[in-house]
Amino acid sequence: MAEAIVDTVTSVPVAVVGAGPAGLMLAHRLGRAGIDTVVIDTRTRHEIATTQRAGILEADAARDLVETGVSDRVLREGHEHEGIELRFGGRPHRIHFKELVGASAWLYPQTDVFVDLADARTRDGGTVLFGVRDTEVLDITTDAPRVRCTLPDGTRHEIRARYAVGADGSRSMCRDLVPEDRRVRYGKEYPFAWFGIMAEAPASAPELVYAHSEHGFALISRRTESVQRMYFQCAADEQVDAWSDERIWETLQARVAGEDGFRLKEGPVLEKTVLRFRSFVQEPMRWGSLLLAGDAAHTVPPTGARGLNLALHDVKVLAEVLVRALGGEGDRALDDYQPRALQRIWRAQNFSSWMTRLLHTEPGGTPFDLRRQLGELDSVAGTRAGRTHLAEQYTGWPTGA
Amino acid sequence: MAEAIVDTVTSVPVAVVGAGPAGLMLAHRLGRAGIDTVVIDTRTRHEIATTQRAGILEADAARDLVETGVSDRVLREGHEHEGIELRFGGRPHRIHFKELVGASAWLYPQTDVFVDLADARTRDGGTVLFGVRDTEVLDITTDAPRVRCTLPDGTRHEIRARYAVGADGSRSMCRDLVPEDRRVRYGKEYPFAWFGIMAEAPASAPELVYAHSEHGFALISRRTESVQRMYFQCAADEQVDAWSDERIWETLQARVAGEDGFRLKEGPVLEKTVLRFRSFVQEPMRWGSLLLAGDAAHTVPPTGARGLNLALHDVKVLAEVLVRALGGEGDRALDDYQPRALQRIWRAQNFSSWMTRLLHTEPGGTPFDLRRQLGELDSVAGTRAGRTHLAEQYTGWPTGA
Repeated sequence: MAEAIVDTVTSVPVAVVGAGPAGLMLAHRLGRAGIDTVVIDTRTRHEIATTQRAGILEADAARDLVETGVSDRVLREGHEHEGIELRFGGRPHRIHFKELVGASAWLYPQTDVFVDLADARTRDGGTVLFGVRDTEVLDITTDAPRVRCTLPDGTRHEIRARYAVGADGSRSMCRDLVPEDRRVRYGKEYPFAWFGIMAEAPASAPELVYAHSEHGFALISRRTESVQRMYFQCAADEQVDAWSDERIWETLQARVAGEDGFRLKEGPVLEKTVLRFRSFVQEPMRWGSLLLAGDAAHTVPPTGARGLNLALHDVKVLAEVLVRALGGEGDRALDDYQPRALQRIWRAQNFSSWMTRLLHTEPGGTPFDLRRQLGELDSVAGTRAGRTHLAEQYTGWPTGA
Repeated sequence: MAEAIVDTVTSVPVAVVGAGPAGLMLAHRLGRAGIDTVVIDTRTRHEIATTQRAGILEADAARDLVETGVSDRVLREGHEHEGIELRFGGRPHRIHFKELVGASAWLYPQTDVFVDLADARTRDGGTVLFGVRDTEVLDITTDAPRVRCTLPDGTRHEIRARYAVGADGSRSMCRDLVPEDRRVRYGKEYPFAWFGIMAEAPASAPELVYAHSEHGFALISRRTESVQRMYFQCAADEQVDAWSDERIWETLQARVAGEDGFRLKEGPVLEKTVLRFRSFVQEPMRWGSLLLAGDAAHTVPPTGARGLNLALHDVKVLAEVLVRALGGEGDRALDDYQPRALQRIWRAQNFSSWMTRLLHTEPGGTPFDLRRQLGELDSVAGTRAGRTHLAEQYTGWPTGA
C-alpha cells in the first residue's frame, strides 16, 4: 500500500483523522497558534450536522468555545443549567451546582458544537476534507507520518505531516495502529442500555432530572421548547419496535412518579433508539508520531455527561504540547500529554461509572443493594459535602484541583 | 416454658439483653433519666473486659462518654486523630478531618468503652447480671414482656418489664423473635476477610494508614506505644496457621511500600486472627415491646469504623424515645425510633461498603476495575470536595446534616 500512487499531496505540521468536536477543536486551537492542519472524516458534513447528538458542556468548555473565537452561539442558544435534580424515594432533590461550586453546566447539543466548529474552520480558512474513504495512516513510528485517503471526487490524496492525530471516535481505526503487544485496553460492559426518545411535548422540568426508581433509571432532558429528549434504562438487547408510545410513556411516568405528584408532559414520540454504552480506555495515547484524542482513546457511559467534555479537555492539552513540540521543543514536549490527560480521564471514568451505578438498578441486584443505593443517594443529596463532591465532578474539576 | 418456676423476680421499666456498649450505654442514659434497668449478658464481665476489640469513636460519641458522666478516660488514654492517611499509587495522601469538617476521630478500643460503662453502672448502682445462661424473652407482643435467665448461682431469675431491648450483638437471639414472615433481612457477603495481628513494635505512623495496593488492602493502626494492631486483606477462608511472622511482615510491607520509602516497624507477632465480616440489616427494629439496637439489628464491614458509633447512635435515639414512652407518651413515642436510626444506618452501610470497595481488590477484578479505583482514590484524596465527603462520613454526620 505504501507504494500506491497518489494524485495530490499536501504538507502540514499536523494531520487529523476525524472531524468530530475533538478533531475540529484541535485544528481550531492549532490554527490560532499559526499551525496548519488538514482534518479528514469519512462522513459528510451534512451527515454529521444532521445526526442528533445530545450534549452537556461544562462551564470551562462552553467558555473555551466563546473565548477561543469559535462562536458565542452557546451563550445565545444553549441553556445554562445551574443544577440538576436527583429524584429518588419519590422526592426531588436539587443539586445546585452554581451555589456549591460556582459553576454551571450548559445544555448544548454536540451536533451544534460540531456545526460551530465546522463553520469556524471554514471562516478561518482551515482545511477539512469530509466524505473521504479508504483512509490509511502510515509511517507513524517515523518523524514523517502520512495520511492517505480517497476524496469524494475519486482522487487519492496524501497528507504529509510531522504529527498525526487519531480523533476518529469510538470506532477508531487509528487506535488499532498501536501494536497489539504494546497497548492495553481497559474496559467494562454494562448489563443494561438506555432507551432514548425525542418527543413533541413541552418541557416537563426546568433542569435535567436524573431519576432513580426501583424499576430503573430515567433521565429527563430537553432539546428545544417543543421537543424533549428522554431516556430510560432498558435491557442491553432491547428492541425499539417492541415499544409503543403508550408503553414508553407508562414506563417513563412510573420511573419519575413520586409523592409530589410529578408527571411528565406527554406527546408524540418522534424518534426511538437504544443506546448501548461501555467504559473504555486505551493506553498509551501516543505511539511514535501518532496521538490519540477523545473517544478514540476512551469512552464513558453517558450518565455523568463527561464524554464530550473529556474530548475537549484532551485536545486542550494536546494543542498546548503540539505547539511546544513544533516550536522547537520536539517530541519531549509530548511526554506531558498522556499523564495530564489521563488523570482527568480516570477521574471521569470513575465518575461516569459511579453515577451509572448510583442511579441504575442492576439486573439480579439484591434488596440490600437497593437499600444501600438509597442510603448512598441520601448521603450524596442530603449533605452539602456529598452534593459538592457530585457537583464538582459533574461540572468538571477546576484546573489543578 | 412460660409455666416454669422462677426463683427470683425483679420488676423494672426496661430489661436489656446484652451488656456490650449498646446495652450498657442505653442503661446508663436511662439511669440518668431516673429509669431503672436490668442488663443481662451470657458472658462474664472478665471475659468481655479481656477480649481485645479495636475501636474508633467519632467525636460525638467520645464527647457523649464524657458529658453523660460515663468517664473522661477517653480524653486521657484515647488518642485524638485529626485525620487519616490514604496510601495509594505508592504515595501518602492525608485526609485532615479537623481542618475539613472540624471533627476528629478518637482511637479508643471498644474493650475500654465497655470497661468504662461497666464501671459506671457499678458506681451508679445499676444492675448488670453477667454470666447468665438459658435466656428467654417472653410476651413481647404484650405490654408486659419478661426476660428469664439462669444466674451463675444456678437460680432462675425473671425480669418483668414494660419494654425489652435486644442489644445482644451480631449473633443476636432477640432479633429471631421478630416473626420470620414479618421481618426483612438485608445482607451482603464479601469475597475477602481481614488478617489481623497484634505486634510488639513501636508505632510506624502517627495516624491510621489505610493502604490500597494492587495486592490488596492493609490497615495500620495502634494499640499502645509498644503494641501495634495491623490488618491486611486475605482470602475469606484464610487459615492463621499458614502464616509465619516472616510471611506476615513481607505481606504487610508490600502493601504499604511506596516511592517515599515508607516501612513498617516490625516486631514479634503476639496474636493472629482472621476477621470475617458482612453487611447486614434487619427490619423492623421494633416488634411489640421488643426493640433492637446495635449489632443485633445491623453489622457493617470494619473499613469505615462505623460499627461501634452506629450502636451508640441507636441507643442515643432509643433512650430518648423510651424516656418519652415511659413518661406518658406511650408506644407512640417508639414510632420515631426506627426512621431516625435507619437513616444513619443506611448511610453508614453505604459508607462502610464504599470504603471497602474503594480500598480492597476484588478477586477476579479486571485491570479496568483497578484503574477506575485509582481514579476514584485520586478524585477523593485529590480534591477538597472529595476529602470533605469522606471526612464527614468517617467522623459521623453532624446531626440534621
